[in-house]
Amino acid sequence: MNNFTFYNPVKILFGKGQISKLSKEIPAEARVMVTYGGGSIKKNGVYDQVMEALKEHTVLEFSNIEPNPHYETLMQAVEIARRQNIDFLLAVGGGSIVDGTKFIAAAIPFEGGDPWDILSKRAPVETAVPFGAVLTLPATGSEMNAGAVITRVETKEKLSFGSPHTFPKFSVLDPETTFSLPLRQISNGIVDAFTHVLEQYLTYPVNAPLQDRMAESILLTLKEEGPKAMQNPGDYDTMANFMWSATMALNGVIRVGVPTDWATHYIAHELTALHGIDHARTLAVVLPALLRYKSETKKEKLLQYGKRIWGVDAGTEDECIEATIQATIAFFESLDINTRLSDYQVGEDTIRRIVQRFQERGVKDLGERADIQVEDVQQILTMSL
Amino acid sequence: MNNFTFYNPVKILFGKGQISKLSKEIPAEARVMVTYGGGSIKKNGVYDQVMEALKEHTVLEFSNIEPNPHYETLMQAVEIARRQNIDFLLAVGGGSIVDGTKFIAAAIPFEGGDPWDILSKRAPVETAVPFGAVLTLPATGSEMNAGAVITRVETKEKLSFGSPHTFPKFSVLDPETTFSLPLRQISNGIVDAFTHVLEQYLTYPVNAPLQDRMAESILLTLKEEGPKAMQNPGDYDTMANFMWSATMALNGVIRVGVPTDWATHYIAHELTALHGIDHARTLAVVLPALLRYKSETKKEKLLQYGKRIWGVDAGTEDECIEATIQATIAFFESLDINTRLSDYQVGEDTIRRIVQRFQERGVKDLGERADIQVEDVQQILTMSL
Repeated sequence: MNNFTFYNPVKILFGKGQISKLSKEIPAEARVMVTYGGGSIKKNGVYDQVMEALKEHTVLEFSNIEPNPHYETLMQAVEIARRQNIDFLLAVGGGSIVDGTKFIAAAIPFEGGDPWDILSKRAPVETAVPFGAVLTLPATGSEMNAGAVITRVETKEKLSFGSPHTFPKFSVLDPETTFSLPLRQISNGIVDAFTHVLEQYLTYPVNAPLQDRMAESILLTLKEEGPKAMQNPGDYDTMANFMWSATMALNGVIRVGVPTDWATHYIAHELTALHGIDHARTLAVVLPALLRYKSETKKEKLLQYGKRIWGVDAGTEDECIEATIQATIAFFESLDINTRLSDYQVGEDTIRRIVQRFQERGVKDLGERADIQVEDVQQILTMSL
Repeated sequence: MNNFTFYNPVKILFGKGQISKLSKEIPAEARVMVTYGGGSIKKNGVYDQVMEALKEHTVLEFSNIEPNPHYETLMQAVEIARRQNIDFLLAVGGGSIVDGTKFIAAAIPFEGGDPWDILSKRAPVETAVPFGAVLTLPATGSEMNAGAVITRVETKEKLSFGSPHTFPKFSVLDPETTFSLPLRQISNGIVDAFTHVLEQYLTYPVNAPLQDRMAESILLTLKEEGPKAMQNPGDYDTMANFMWSATMALNGVIRVGVPTDWATHYIAHELTALHGIDHARTLAVVLPALLRYKSETKKEKLLQYGKRIWGVDAGTEDECIEATIQATIAFFESLDINTRLSDYQVGEDTIRRIVQRFQERGVKDLGERADIQVEDVQQILTMSL
């Protein structure tokens, strides 16, 4: 096992009716900005529940935060929050809203120049406005970690940041808020969470059997509950199990002491930035190609993954690995998620653009062995055509 | 899945060499009291590492805290700490030292009367002196939770308390500090951690497959690594896996949203209080009898446990359950832990005393279904003779 530091102070309030406890988690005298997206929370009753819970608080609203939240939009929120002396933020929505709110929280008190530097230059975040979240979409895990991904429309860039100051103070996870989700968002969430686990698991063994089994616990649960969620998104227990799996997938518990490989996310972000393809779908395209391309260096873990999750244990090692990758693809496709670039009308032009961007940005040494260079990215994307 | 709140802000620094990072975790101007036990940390080099790390800090020492830490001893530390204006505590040792330090931390600023009330009357702990821990013995999980168990010698009572204010600020877990542990303490630690998991797992199903699998992950890892630790306590990876398993067993992750049954600990504490038997050994005595006595109401989970952990799946349900309990007993015995009261020269006299104590204390409604009354405790103990 590798050395590690683990720290996660996010308080989770999980279950039906928990939104009503919001008021106790936010200081009574706080000036709260409630951030949300396109208004689905007004249709499914979540908005009303939140406002009812905050009726004794001073509340201002900022809506219309997009999926893959835009820097340009978020900076409007920052300006309003500064002007209105907002001192608590409450994100209500999915991972994009939570991510966007993390950026707003960090940008409001940012004194190191242009807040864009937080993303483009990894300028250190020394403080942030405290915030909480009411999660309505299981997927990104943002509700229980300190990271965020932000898109700049102007330059079609999608960049990430994180800081010990950008953990939510609390997150409310009420599975009932997910009952009205479109199937497309449920399938995206399953694939996003599943991929998060694989990126912390499909590397190389370091004799960390507990972490391996905990990662496998989430994979098995998503494999079991994911299809059920697609068939019956109104079943409380199914959505609760899916929701908690997605949170556990990226709250740090399974990554302690093991190598991680975020290359899939890093490459896939470009497909969203350039073409607006749903985040999870870009993962479903990049991951299988990356696993095939790196099957030699990921061999032991791929074999373990295949055996323990998909019951693959017949044939040569190469055959087992191919069967395992096929099983992963079949799982994604069974959720109506296409797994090839061509399914999204993306071709070699885009690969050339991504390669050029990575060259300009000086991207190198991706993957758990720091052995994925720009030319490897080109090969991986070509394999995914 | 049941509703739940999860909160655990303990920072974990895990791995070899991490003690040297202590100084960054404790405010530079703090007046630190280092608490420890009988001096084993002076023999294995841990004391020297800690003092080297704290050489720029103002440090006072308080030693000779016993296993099953004594209220009487801890109150001496409280008095000294108050007199010396101590504002940070550092526990160096096993669970007893960490538990004792939690009590010292809560008692120093306690203004509600006699600090004994924290234990005997569950008087609320409104604040506590901040503290950290350097763990040298994987077992209790105290390094990553807010609970503690304290013994009063005068009255032979062993009582627990917990508060959101008694989480360690940080805990350092360096597996190398465990290399010199006596085998008796290693086996105790394995059984303690294993029992912690079973008490959060062997209840009744609430459709929480992720929590079930995470609990099973720890059980399987302890089953695998435990015997290796007994054979080769100098193997880094083995001790690291054991150490992290013991922490994960009681940091709250596996208990979210599921029923728990702490009756084994509650009953077993009396055997330590009255006879000084090692804590883990009292668990190994009470647990099998309790599982047999409640096998009807714990049936589904006992069958799942037997199948997934011990590979038991032949025979009638009753046969499977008995084989599962036998496998658990055999595991404990394989670690040189006896599982019957008579092995510890304890007989019916003690059962009568415990029953009388529980009657006087008004103990009732133990277990996940609140259906274990004093007469059931008597039966369980009689079955363990």
